[in-house]
Amino acid sequence: MAKDKESKSNITLKVPKGTKDWEGKDMVIREKIFNSITNVFKRHGAVTIDTPVFELKEILSGKYGEDSKLIYDLADQGGELCALRYDLTVPFARWLAMNPTVSQIKRYHIAKVYRRDAPAMTKGRMREFYQCDFDIAGQWDPMLPDAEILRIVTEVFEELGWKGRYTIKLNHRKILDGIFEVCGVPQDKIRTISSAVDKLDKSPWEEVRREMTEDKGLDPAVADKIGEFVRLKGGEDLLTKLLANETLTANPSAQKGLEDMRLLFSYLSVFNVMDKISFDMSLARGLDYYTGVIYEIVTEGSAPPANAADGPAPDKKDKKKKKAANGEDDDRSDDPSVGVGSIAAGGRYDELVGMFSGKGQVPCVGVSFGVERIFSLTKKRMAEDAAAKEVRLTETDVFVMAFGGKGFTGLLPERMDIAKTLWDAGIKAEFTWKAKPKLPAQFKQAETNGVPFVVILGEDELKAGKVKIKQMGLPEGHPEKEGVMVEKADLVAEVRKRLDAFNGAEQAAEQVAKLSV
Amino acid sequence: MAKDKESKSNITLKVPKGTKDWEGKDMVIREKIFNSITNVFKRHGAVTIDTPVFELKEILSGKYGEDSKLIYDLADQGGELCALRYDLTVPFARWLAMNPTVSQIKRYHIAKVYRRDAPAMTKGRMREFYQCDFDIAGQWDPMLPDAEILRIVTEVFEELGWKGRYTIKLNHRKILDGIFEVCGVPQDKIRTISSAVDKLDKSPWEEVRREMTEDKGLDPAVADKIGEFVRLKGGEDLLTKLLANETLTANPSAQKGLEDMRLLFSYLSVFNVMDKISFDMSLARGLDYYTGVIYEIVTEGSAPPANAADGPAPDKKDKKKKKAANGEDDDRSDDPSVGVGSIAAGGRYDELVGMFSGKGQVPCVGVSFGVERIFSLTKKRMAEDAAAKEVRLTETDVFVMAFGGKGFTGLLPERMDIAKTLWDAGIKAEFTWKAKPKLPAQFKQAETNGVPFVVILGEDELKAGKVKIKQMGLPEGHPEKEGVMVEKADLVAEVRKRLDAFNGAEQAAEQVAKLSV
Repeated sequence: MAKDKESKSNITLKVPKGTKDWEGKDMVIREKIFNSITNVFKRHGAVTIDTPVFELKEILSGKYGEDSKLIYDLADQGGELCALRYDLTVPFARWLAMNPTVSQIKRYHIAKVYRRDAPAMTKGRMREFYQCDFDIAGQWDPMLPDAEILRIVTEVFEELGWKGRYTIKLNHRKILDGIFEVCGVPQDKIRTISSAVDKLDKSPWEEVRREMTEDKGLDPAVADKIGEFVRLKGGEDLLTKLLANETLTANPSAQKGLEDMRLLFSYLSVFNVMDKISFDMSLARGLDYYTGVIYEIVTEGSAPPANAADGPAPDKKDKKKKKAANGEDDDRSDDPSVGVGSIAAGGRYDELVGMFSGKGQVPCVGVSFGVERIFSLTKKRMAEDAAAKEVRLTETDVFVMAFGGKGFTGLLPERMDIAKTLWDAGIKAEFTWKAKPKLPAQFKQAETNGVPFVVILGEDELKAGKVKIKQMGLPEGHPEKEGVMVEKADLVAEVRKRLDAFNGAEQAAEQVAKLSV
Repeated sequence: MAKDKESKSNITLKVPKGTKDWEGKDMVIREKIFNSITNVFKRHGAVTIDTPVFELKEILSGKYGEDSKLIYDLADQGGELCALRYDLTVPFARWLAMNPTVSQIKRYHIAKVYRRDAPAMTKGRMREFYQCDFDIAGQWDPMLPDAEILRIVTEVFEELGWKGRYTIKLNHRKILDGIFEVCGVPQDKIRTISSAVDKLDKSPWEEVRREMTEDKGLDPAVADKIGEFVRLKGGEDLLTKLLANETLTANPSAQKGLEDMRLLFSYLSVFNVMDKISFDMSLARGLDYYTGVIYEIVTEGSAPPANAADGPAPDKKDKKKKKAANGEDDDRSDDPSVGVGSIAAGGRYDELVGMFSGKGQVPCVGVSFGVERIFSLTKKRMAEDAAAKEVRLTETDVFVMAFGGKGFTGLLPERMDIAKTLWDAGIKAEFTWKAKPKLPAQFKQAETNGVPFVVILGEDELKAGKVKIKQMGLPEGHPEKEGVMVEKADLVAEVRKRLDAFNGAEQAAEQVAKLSV
């Protein structure tokens, strides 16, 4: 926080550790990202639900394993014990359990979540950060909601202009469990071996093997069998290969997972998603509650620069486990050799709602977009792209200004009246709150915010019932370069005509920019 | 919480006291309210800033007087002591103090705030609730930002369709202070007498006089003098009357306040706001930090039904002071004789930023809209209005379905392919996640969410390269009542043509509805 300072009353002027104020162009970019994502969610018929920022503490208990220590508690000030939400999935499951008449829903939720983790601000890893979740709950025919979720993932990244820059790593918990079983992992070691496998995206096999055998006491022969499987990745070719493995298909869990994948792949082909898929046997995901397909979306910036060529991306999970949430700075967390991690992730969780409800399960599948990470990468890309358009801070269409010579009154009521007329017509307009402003100062205020049009009032022109409209930044030789005088009575129509043309050209330019990235 | 229940694991399934889940049509209505308000804010050139949901505890200390006991603290888990924000004004002032290069800004912020108050859910008074703030910071010519804020207030309520249903109660702290001085209130009693006056919107003068004289030890003769002033209300007539009062205008504070009001009224006339203004000498506002104009916006539902004819509206402030935040239910808080209070309020606060910063003051003026209260009244009005249009839960444009006779395959890949084609074109589309769905079930799913168009696939028609588009709910005799068969290749264009016509008609109907309320 470069802006930290002490006030005269000795208050430390800062935001809490791991949080930040969003302002200026960052805020505009973030809003655009939210709008793009929401747009896709609505295209698929989703509703949105808003849950409280804190939940009863017992609702969150026992859902996050050892990460529970990262939960922010509210102080006990009498009454119920509460804690800030850690994610949006558990509150959604709690909501489903509380509303048993809701048997089917597609819902999205864009909101802040809280983790007392070691922050890495420049990577977009914060203690307060946005999640952006889309989930489908309900009993449907197999793999159809799962396929639509992955289709939504592609639409979101296409909408954000990331065409060709992301990969969906895909696996299935039942296949993994089957592999562990046929390799001979004891039942009580399956979860811990699974989380060792999950580290393959940032550690070499030798290190993961060492953890399995030395730290976790796995028979080296079993570890070697696992190694043959979990280093496999591919697409339909890999599925064909695994389906041909009779040892594996003899295992009921693996058999079920492989059948799911065969069906899913056929749906993903229709949805034009298969070319973004990497069927990756090393993907295990940390959370316990997944029961079916699991996925993580990675991009160039996901991996540390040093080993970007190797493909796999590091993840926040490992770091979280190593670092205690003790309020101390994590020296390594801003290390440039660490990537931002996955930019979206999710999977099927058919048994979470049942943890809250005696009324039985509601099968669910969902995805969570890491908006802060997506923001960090978007901003980085914009900074590198010389052709990127300047981000406008405001949406103001028209700046109303006045000029005059000696004895200039400032035309304040006249400027206010013109602004009022534009507001009444729904046109975004500003004027400067000075009784007698100078013309250059008014132009500067308009230019600073990139306002596209100005309306200029002069005393003589007003007496003749006329005002001038000028589009900013027109090229030399344009017929309206110096502005155009119009009847004051026609102002709204004349402004609107030019605004429509301007906005149409802007949209066309954005479309071209999106296609060319 | 009618939905409370115990789960099999003995977890109490509920949200924390004073909070709620937002879902279904309520959520859609709330989003529409946010969009209307944001639209107005952007029309006036505002940017938005997002601050953390919690602040360092010392930032909030000493800003809210005796209401500080309502602040939610975070537990001390090591590191900084933090508390949930109580409003959006103090975080904005903290941000301005932290960013001394920002000397001028118009910003809006729509976000949740937290108060450990006695909840009254049906009135929209919650422990977690949204505020919706618009503030102008910076040194400008007198009363111009103030006038624009009040203009924004009118635009927001017109946009919400409340034309003629709201009143802006307006006063000025300097006039009030001047009145207290000329009446002979000792300097050290001015703030406490001011808060007694603020109760005139729900208590008769006799009760307020009793509080001044008996509880607060004011000379009865002084109280009577105050009584002559603070029961006055009106418009420009009242201003003229006060300006003619030489005792009052001899007081520098009153003189300054009255001059401000004269200027403000002239600006409000240009902005077409004066007919919504009630210059009300009983308005004092609870918070200490106001230094200039103050205002509260009230509506029919603001006042309790019993004394609605008397005009004044009750306010939450009195109740807050009487009730300890002890986690107990407030028996009276759902009393139907209590109104929802003001629906927006604000004022000028020129000295708040300086509480954080040694670098000097940044003058500010702002308004906060009580979105939850506006929501409660909007919903009540919709329930009473038989002509009000049904609120749609989703924005889905097209439901893709299939039908067939004996040996019907379900046409699943075909439905998926059509949905994909529509999504690619940006059209909001759904299909049912069943391999072999029944036609009535598909129609029901479309009708439940009010989807305006369906695309129906049949095996024979698809072989001929054709699909059917049907608009739901067309009247008997309409040429497309039974749907229209189009070339599959033209589907997107044919759907878009009908959607544009449908949306155009919807918008026109909404416009008419808004004008007629």
